[in-house]
Amino acid sequence: PDGFGELDRRAIDTARILAMDAVQKVGNGHPGTAMSMAPTAYLLFQKWLRHDPSDPNWVGRDRFILSMGHSSLTLYVQLYLSGYGLELDDLKALRTWGSQTPGHPEVNHTPGVETTTGPLGQGVGNAVGMAMAARRERGLFDADAAERESLFDHTIWAFASDGDLEEGVSGEASSLAGTQQLGNLVLVYDDNKISIEDDTTVAFTEDVGKRYEAYGWHVQHVDDGEDLAALDAAFAAAKAETTRPSIIVLKTIIGWPAPNKQNTGAAHGSALGDDEARATKEILGFDPEQSFEVAPEVIEHARKVVARGQEAHAAWQKGFDAWKQGNPDGAALLERMRTRTLPEGWAEKLPSWDADPKGVATRKASGEVLAALYPEIPELWGGSADLAESNNTAVKGEPSFLPASRQTKMWSGGPYGRTLHFGVREHAMGAIMNGIALHGGTRVYGGTFLTFSDYMRGAVRLAALMQLPVIYVWTHDSIGLGEDGPTHQPIEHFAALRAIPGLDVVRPADANEVAVAWRTILENNDRPAGLLLSRQNLPVVDRGEFGSAEGTARGAYVLAPASNEASGGTPEVILMGTGSEVQIAVAARERLEADGVPTRVVSVPCVEWFAEQDDAYKNELFPPAVRARVSIEAGVPLGWREFVGDAGRIVGLTHYGASAAYSVLYEKFGLTDEAVVAAARESI
Amino acid sequence: PDGFGELDRRAIDTARILAMDAVQKVGNGHPGTAMSMAPTAYLLFQKWLRHDPSDPNWVGRDRFILSMGHSSLTLYVQLYLSGYGLELDDLKALRTWGSQTPGHPEVNHTPGVETTTGPLGQGVGNAVGMAMAARRERGLFDADAAERESLFDHTIWAFASDGDLEEGVSGEASSLAGTQQLGNLVLVYDDNKISIEDDTTVAFTEDVGKRYEAYGWHVQHVDDGEDLAALDAAFAAAKAETTRPSIIVLKTIIGWPAPNKQNTGAAHGSALGDDEARATKEILGFDPEQSFEVAPEVIEHARKVVARGQEAHAAWQKGFDAWKQGNPDGAALLERMRTRTLPEGWAEKLPSWDADPKGVATRKASGEVLAALYPEIPELWGGSADLAESNNTAVKGEPSFLPASRQTKMWSGGPYGRTLHFGVREHAMGAIMNGIALHGGTRVYGGTFLTFSDYMRGAVRLAALMQLPVIYVWTHDSIGLGEDGPTHQPIEHFAALRAIPGLDVVRPADANEVAVAWRTILENNDRPAGLLLSRQNLPVVDRGEFGSAEGTARGAYVLAPASNEASGGTPEVILMGTGSEVQIAVAARERLEADGVPTRVVSVPCVEWFAEQDDAYKNELFPPAVRARVSIEAGVPLGWREFVGDAGRIVGLTHYGASAAYSVLYEKFGLTDEAVVAAARESI
Repeated sequence: PDGFGELDRRAIDTARILAMDAVQKVGNGHPGTAMSMAPTAYLLFQKWLRHDPSDPNWVGRDRFILSMGHSSLTLYVQLYLSGYGLELDDLKALRTWGSQTPGHPEVNHTPGVETTTGPLGQGVGNAVGMAMAARRERGLFDADAAERESLFDHTIWAFASDGDLEEGVSGEASSLAGTQQLGNLVLVYDDNKISIEDDTTVAFTEDVGKRYEAYGWHVQHVDDGEDLAALDAAFAAAKAETTRPSIIVLKTIIGWPAPNKQNTGAAHGSALGDDEARATKEILGFDPEQSFEVAPEVIEHARKVVARGQEAHAAWQKGFDAWKQGNPDGAALLERMRTRTLPEGWAEKLPSWDADPKGVATRKASGEVLAALYPEIPELWGGSADLAESNNTAVKGEPSFLPASRQTKMWSGGPYGRTLHFGVREHAMGAIMNGIALHGGTRVYGGTFLTFSDYMRGAVRLAALMQLPVIYVWTHDSIGLGEDGPTHQPIEHFAALRAIPGLDVVRPADANEVAVAWRTILENNDRPAGLLLSRQNLPVVDRGEFGSAEGTARGAYVLAPASNEASGGTPEVILMGTGSEVQIAVAARERLEADGVPTRVVSVPCVEWFAEQDDAYKNELFPPAVRARVSIEAGVPLGWREFVGDAGRIVGLTHYGASAAYSVLYEKFGLTDEAVVAAARESI
Repeated sequence: PDGFGELDRRAIDTARILAMDAVQKVGNGHPGTAMSMAPTAYLLFQKWLRHDPSDPNWVGRDRFILSMGHSSLTLYVQLYLSGYGLELDDLKALRTWGSQTPGHPEVNHTPGVETTTGPLGQGVGNAVGMAMAARRERGLFDADAAERESLFDHTIWAFASDGDLEEGVSGEASSLAGTQQLGNLVLVYDDNKISIEDDTTVAFTEDVGKRYEAYGWHVQHVDDGEDLAALDAAFAAAKAETTRPSIIVLKTIIGWPAPNKQNTGAAHGSALGDDEARATKEILGFDPEQSFEVAPEVIEHARKVVARGQEAHAAWQKGFDAWKQGNPDGAALLERMRTRTLPEGWAEKLPSWDADPKGVATRKASGEVLAALYPEIPELWGGSADLAESNNTAVKGEPSFLPASRQTKMWSGGPYGRTLHFGVREHAMGAIMNGIALHGGTRVYGGTFLTFSDYMRGAVRLAALMQLPVIYVWTHDSIGLGEDGPTHQPIEHFAALRAIPGLDVVRPADANEVAVAWRTILENNDRPAGLLLSRQNLPVVDRGEFGSAEGTARGAYVLAPASNEASGGTPEVILMGTGSEVQIAVAARERLEADGVPTRVVSVPCVEWFAEQDDAYKNELFPPAVRARVSIEAGVPLGWREFVGDAGRIVGLTHYGASAAYSVLYEKFGLTDEAVVAAARESI
């Protein structure tokens, strides 16, 4: 490439040496890909990636995603060479406690790392999400700028391995990227035909380029990962292509040029060993006796990218300042989004519902909340994995996020639209939502049936790990969905989702709890949440008679005190439940009270929020002296012992559901007020 | 097609009417696809599917999988027309309690249903698994027969919808099917371009046929789902193609010929309404005032397929009887496999390990168990999602299950081989394992890292729901995997997997527990199990000093009694743990005993097996009087309160892991004997 010389070649070989030595030092890790992808990564970081290493959060920067997170050294070494703050000692501390260089790249941990990767395929989904977010954000800030003329135009670059492209999640995301015509996305596929089980011929023989053509991508082939000129031309062509996402199918030899271990599974995931490292250094003209050898002129040369980045940034900044001047509203929105803060007064627009025994499905209430908030919070957007109407995720009259040519009779919209159509792709939806949240400050939600949270669990976990404020709208949240039967009826999902550290699982009991739940979720900007919503109508609780729905924000609250509490008495038994089962607890309370048993009902919409309350509140809600307790939830009992204690009883399900009307199922499966009353009597 | 006439056309239209009426009657369901796929389904069941409706379990039968399970009527109506035992009343009872016709097809519930479908994409994975199993089983019974000459040769037919092919799991499975050159697999893709969000242009615009070409499939296009001749020719060509799997991209119009709702999302998932149903009946020449109208001559004609099936079966049976005669060993194996029983004496071959403080990783012990059992149990086979060496799932010297041309330097084998290579495709692995278990009596296992059980959870749930005896080898089961860091370290997975009804989650504490665990898992032939195995070495417990590993089979057992128990005393505290944390409990016990606290240690390898024990055993293990209890497990506390009670303490993790050596992590995260001792003192 223009301007590239001997020092660049040396820097690339230095990258290989460093990758090899870092793994060698700690004794484990993945050297091979970092060696063979060194030329591509170096070319990208030095020439193509628009970045300012002295400000890794520059709004105008390109993004780089290393989907094959195991090859973290591919990234760490470039962050070191580009002057992001990583130094040789950091590389020497690879994969050790407290280091800046953990086994897999972690966002918010190492400057320059844009997303946490490692679970294969996720990074491709993240990249697609970032490319979508970039378009949506451009629409929010600078919709009228000509193509490529906006300050908010930039490119999302991603590297992916064989394993990434074997995973279904990347296929889902890539298919959607084709539909979305994401011209700002460039994916480099490291086609080295080696994975942990060595030659991929045993499992992965498809024609990847052809598959991506089928998705509607721009496909290029570069047959030698060492051919910088060909790579450079491919990058140029990919960037010039603005109407489709680009993939570069790049042939490399893993572990190149290690004399014995190149092109083997052994080079993928283990240290090369002293002899092989030495031999490789000799081949590359390095001192075989030295480790972490970096010539001063090499690092000095490589780090000139900092000055170039600062220049680009400064030029951009001029335009940005002018834009700010001319767009005070846009600038204010951007500032809010950068800090993930909400506009003043937004929560006043939340709807509320009057008491209504016939009630409303909580999924429907959620849709009404969204409709009320859309005008207030422009950064809020979302959609569904092909269940818009069922999930109540599409706000009427809002444009779809679609290339103009993809509009249909039912969905109009445009490239800056707001309603997302993920297709039947829950896993990609999750990974894309993560990418959207990582890219900027929009607040994105995505819906599917609760039972299919299983399909997206890999991405949900990463949202929790990365503390991304994405919102899952999981409707049809129990056997209460009725006739679709056991494959669609979540039983274990309440517990299984509560198990994920850092995920808020919120299951409102009525429409007013839904409103407070949405408010609280949006107020939390540092973690994901899942809203578990009913298909069936749930009575709207009479808040004159019962406790305020405000209690939802504390995770649990007294919905109905025992009759003797007003006179200073103590409940004889506490009933508790979530979502659609709270009404059963309320009905059971009536019967118990009629029989002279002072009975309190606690609604528990969110276990995680309740766990954050102080002990005084916890003890007020569940006085330790009241040991007679019953929980009811249409799922596995797992977790409720913590609330009901040794003397308590748990009414739940330990088996799968069935296909029938929901009222029949509740009766047949013993989720009834009679059952709760009986359990209460046992517990007393 | 040859021999098809007016009655067949009438039967097809009857199928449409029945689908429409059944949904109309219950008021919800999915009529549209059952209407438009009626010709294809009828043609398949009447002419191409080799089956004997009077014996739905005939070994020589083809298999039919309806991946789009929501269109259950596509199948139910053919089962009715073909004489499988379903009658009109069953169709009238669609989606109601106790009926033979639940919302989605359920295996072992309705004769003729081969697998439970509904969660999209799974059926495609099941079909690939069945096609693989058919090849492996042929290899076990009739390896030397010429192509297509074996009694065990048959075809796997599957229908899939847009949604099925949008899901990543189907892409993963289809890619592998291409690699495996599954010539016995025919997939019909119902290309109706409608999903719940109506016109799929908003989300699914790829060229599916081209994608399948990229996978190496034989691709055909039929442009009109009403063109029986074209369909017939396509089926013939697909069946003639034996070197590749076949896909038929079939254009249909959903809801055809409903005058207003055809070709809309509304026809997909709701009743058409009375007016539309009437209008459709008129178009088809049926009485608009009648429901469930079936002309006697139509049903009589359609059910002639029973006699044809019996003839085919009888002809096959002759060959089969001769084969049995000549292959007593094969016949005995087949009988064992049909009844899922194990050979006598097999368990005597299980290895055992001597006490060894340095120990052995439980994943390694598992590999040794497999090596010992392979000669004894020919129906046992399995592999890994590209982690063979890490999961210890490949038995040395065993052939890979691969077309000869796919062998590599590392893996030799053949079409009847035993080691499976799933590629980096956990979800497809799960769905394929289900298909394998459904197809015949082989016992299949599949490995990946425990954290990636998240990726395959959709399939694991279905295994549990279908009670399939598949085995998951989930290694690297905790932060004990060390340097790979939080993305790879399971924290919540113990609890999240235990939440799944019908799944046994087994986490052995040492090598000898592994052997008993494998034995018990193989003895259970009616449910899936996951083995959670360590990457790191675990001490082999001295079984002379401590309790026998036989206790593993009961799910929990006294590993070390308190010192005062021999003299009839009661422990002052009970420590319990699973897997790699049991050794910490043992170390804590030593310290407590040294301090004069009689301490019992209980190993809890499997909560589910323990739950099946009688109360006497449970109370013996955890005497109600001993309320001081501590659990230790390197995961979220969820679930342990049930064991430790109100007075107990739980030592676990409530946050994600980190990248460092495992010994550092255990120390930093407080998973230590000191912590257990402190917790015990608190609990006392």
